[in-house]
Amino acid sequence: MSDTLGIALVGCGTVGNGVANVLLSRPERVAQRAGRPLALRRVVVRDPAKPRDPLVARDLISTDIRAAIHDPNVHVVVELIGGTTVAKGVVLDSLAAGKHVVTANKALLADAGAEVFEAARKAERTVCFEAAVAGGVPVIRALGESLAANQVTAIQAILNGTSNFILTAMAERGMSYAAALAEAQKLGFAEADPTLDVDGSDAAHKLAVLAQIAFGVTAKPHEIARQGIDTIDAIDIGFANELGYTIKLLAEAWTGGHGHAGNGTKQSRGTAPADHGAPTVALHVAPVLLRHTDLLAQVRGAYNAVLVYGDIVGETLYQGPGAGRMPTASSVVADLIDLGVGRAQRTFAAAKLWSREGRGFTVEPPERVRSRFYLRLQVADRPGVLADITRILADEEISISSLVQHEAAEEGGGPVPLVIVTHYAATGRFRKALTRINALSTTAAPAVFFSMGD
Amino acid sequence: MSDTLGIALVGCGTVGNGVANVLLSRPERVAQRAGRPLALRRVVVRDPAKPRDPLVARDLISTDIRAAIHDPNVHVVVELIGGTTVAKGVVLDSLAAGKHVVTANKALLADAGAEVFEAARKAERTVCFEAAVAGGVPVIRALGESLAANQVTAIQAILNGTSNFILTAMAERGMSYAAALAEAQKLGFAEADPTLDVDGSDAAHKLAVLAQIAFGVTAKPHEIARQGIDTIDAIDIGFANELGYTIKLLAEAWTGGHGHAGNGTKQSRGTAPADHGAPTVALHVAPVLLRHTDLLAQVRGAYNAVLVYGDIVGETLYQGPGAGRMPTASSVVADLIDLGVGRAQRTFAAAKLWSREGRGFTVEPPERVRSRFYLRLQVADRPGVLADITRILADEEISISSLVQHEAAEEGGGPVPLVIVTHYAATGRFRKALTRINALSTTAAPAVFFSMGD
Repeated sequence: MSDTLGIALVGCGTVGNGVANVLLSRPERVAQRAGRPLALRRVVVRDPAKPRDPLVARDLISTDIRAAIHDPNVHVVVELIGGTTVAKGVVLDSLAAGKHVVTANKALLADAGAEVFEAARKAERTVCFEAAVAGGVPVIRALGESLAANQVTAIQAILNGTSNFILTAMAERGMSYAAALAEAQKLGFAEADPTLDVDGSDAAHKLAVLAQIAFGVTAKPHEIARQGIDTIDAIDIGFANELGYTIKLLAEAWTGGHGHAGNGTKQSRGTAPADHGAPTVALHVAPVLLRHTDLLAQVRGAYNAVLVYGDIVGETLYQGPGAGRMPTASSVVADLIDLGVGRAQRTFAAAKLWSREGRGFTVEPPERVRSRFYLRLQVADRPGVLADITRILADEEISISSLVQHEAAEEGGGPVPLVIVTHYAATGRFRKALTRINALSTTAAPAVFFSMGD
Repeated sequence: MSDTLGIALVGCGTVGNGVANVLLSRPERVAQRAGRPLALRRVVVRDPAKPRDPLVARDLISTDIRAAIHDPNVHVVVELIGGTTVAKGVVLDSLAAGKHVVTANKALLADAGAEVFEAARKAERTVCFEAAVAGGVPVIRALGESLAANQVTAIQAILNGTSNFILTAMAERGMSYAAALAEAQKLGFAEADPTLDVDGSDAAHKLAVLAQIAFGVTAKPHEIARQGIDTIDAIDIGFANELGYTIKLLAEAWTGGHGHAGNGTKQSRGTAPADHGAPTVALHVAPVLLRHTDLLAQVRGAYNAVLVYGDIVGETLYQGPGAGRMPTASSVVADLIDLGVGRAQRTFAAAKLWSREGRGFTVEPPERVRSRFYLRLQVADRPGVLADITRILADEEISISSLVQHEAAEEGGGPVPLVIVTHYAATGRFRKALTRINALSTTAAPAVFFSMGD
């Protein structure tokens, strides 16, 4: 058996305690899988007085980041601080000091992946990040290794467990958004400030990481269009259900030409191939209506799932717990084992992530994505209203697939909801129609709309 | 970029043509991912006159296996013959000649894995087999690498696409077994002789391979208890549906103690920890009733899916096309890329599969697996019948969870179906009760029974 791999944990909150627990409670197993012992040498925390996993001996704990990074008996620094300021310094300093880095920090990778990976290449060290996307679901390895024969043509993913928990509670138990969020917070699925989860930012960070692996594009998080679940009304969940659909918050990547048959006649989600011929990919996070029978529609609670379309294999799905102490620790320790085996170093060198050696893809705005749309309007209950709306849609060459308008409670009452499902249309064109529809005197509130998943 | 990796395909049927197509149509992509060119140098077939993928140049093709194996420009032999006789010779000879081997041959691994891996270790060469289980779904890497921090405690998997296609057609379209099988054959999902698919043998081979990775046990296929779908009656699919369940053919592995809470009060599938304290695993293939909302219940058509329970991560699911030309080629080429990168060699050395270095598990007979059971009887429609049956179950300490008996078409008519769902009971004990029930003069036909998935 080879030399011991020394490990420093920097940050020891929920996930850090899980990682420490696995390493300290199952050393034989981890050594057997890694082909060498993995020794937890240091645990760096802000507040040493905080309660930790009982296996973490007091003398492992310190507040000295520098000492951990420069300890010659430490070969791998596991960054679990989160955020993009202190964490970035820890990662760059660790690489400069000749340490490999394992991180669960999607925000850091999305924000400064190029800088981090450039530093790693310069230092001839490896950065691993299986835990950064989808927690315990091994989607980084799936995209980077298992599907290496494929060019990915699309990704549809549930990457934020909090949002999925809330949507599941709203759909299955008829809860309001506020009540579902409160329950998620009570159960520990949502932070006290849930903004980044429910507004789509967390999912956008993770999508940026997946897009780097699948398409070689470096999309800054703020370049990824996003719409969260914080504006979803229970009425839309009800209408969706009536139409046979479930609303899910999806992170999506659509390449130009995905799903288009050679003869161009097949209609599906995706964008047309770009005129300039170079491959393109559109990235966005948004609530999407999925048929009840779709694989992703059936992902419940705080689970994550990633549906990947490869040009050779077709579609494969990866699903499991997207967060939490032990699931995320499972992915961090898998990275440590891979470093022990020597696999991670080979993968890092071969994948050339966040380098100038991309795959030729350029990011295009989601306006070009073709989709069917769900559109809910509040309209006056009087003659001619529907004629105005359908005329505007016809002007933009958007045809109507189905329509739901329930009888008003009383004649001559206030505005009533009208739901229209369209056939395929480019997002940009649909938005243009929307602007005109919103300007009609007969529509009482801005239209609500979502893409349909197929 | 490093040296070219030379490849010989031995066997060029459906999958072989797919592999050749990927290598020949996308050489730049494959070279980029592998860090070196992958060159298809030889294609060995039985009948050179057979039509092939048009990219396979005539001068690549020969019938000379020996020449391919001993070609100094060939570094990897891809065995796609299938079966366990010629294929075994090809694999052993290739290893002895210093070639790495990639194979999709689950029967060979299940039957002679120890011999093959011993030969590989002796020759210091690597054997890869992602395509051997679940086609395009990367479950070998998931178990061996991504989940390396975990001890797997259970596996439930749909590993035979033909059976799943037939069951889906029976459940969703009300087809008979014979009609569904005929359609599967017409669509190319089932062989002319479908025996190995529908009797559970193919799934048992694949389960044997998964069990080696997850538990280090070498279970000969004939040691894995199996029941296929060839005996499933449409009436049971109907009753299952009425109870809220779907019947799926599952390959299952349950370790001793899986799902048992520390205090022993929680009831679930699995076996009790063995008295001798050493870890045990029960392996079997059988139709199982799953709740409509279970992840595996929702796997439709020819898809495969593997649900893995890890002691750290919890449950993760891997799903996708389980067979076919391009999905299987995706996995074979991923193995070739891994050999190019140098990852596969590290994995092979670290995993020590089919070696004497097991994980201490012993295989136990499925009689000890605890399960709820679905039991259908044909009983005489007269007083006292139910009393006899429930008395026998009570004698074996098996309690009844629910019961369905529909009104007979006419009074005093022939035997009527009676469906009983039990609470948890050990399989052995349940079978004992069954023998006594079948011996009753009031039961008209041998009882039909299946496990329930939870």
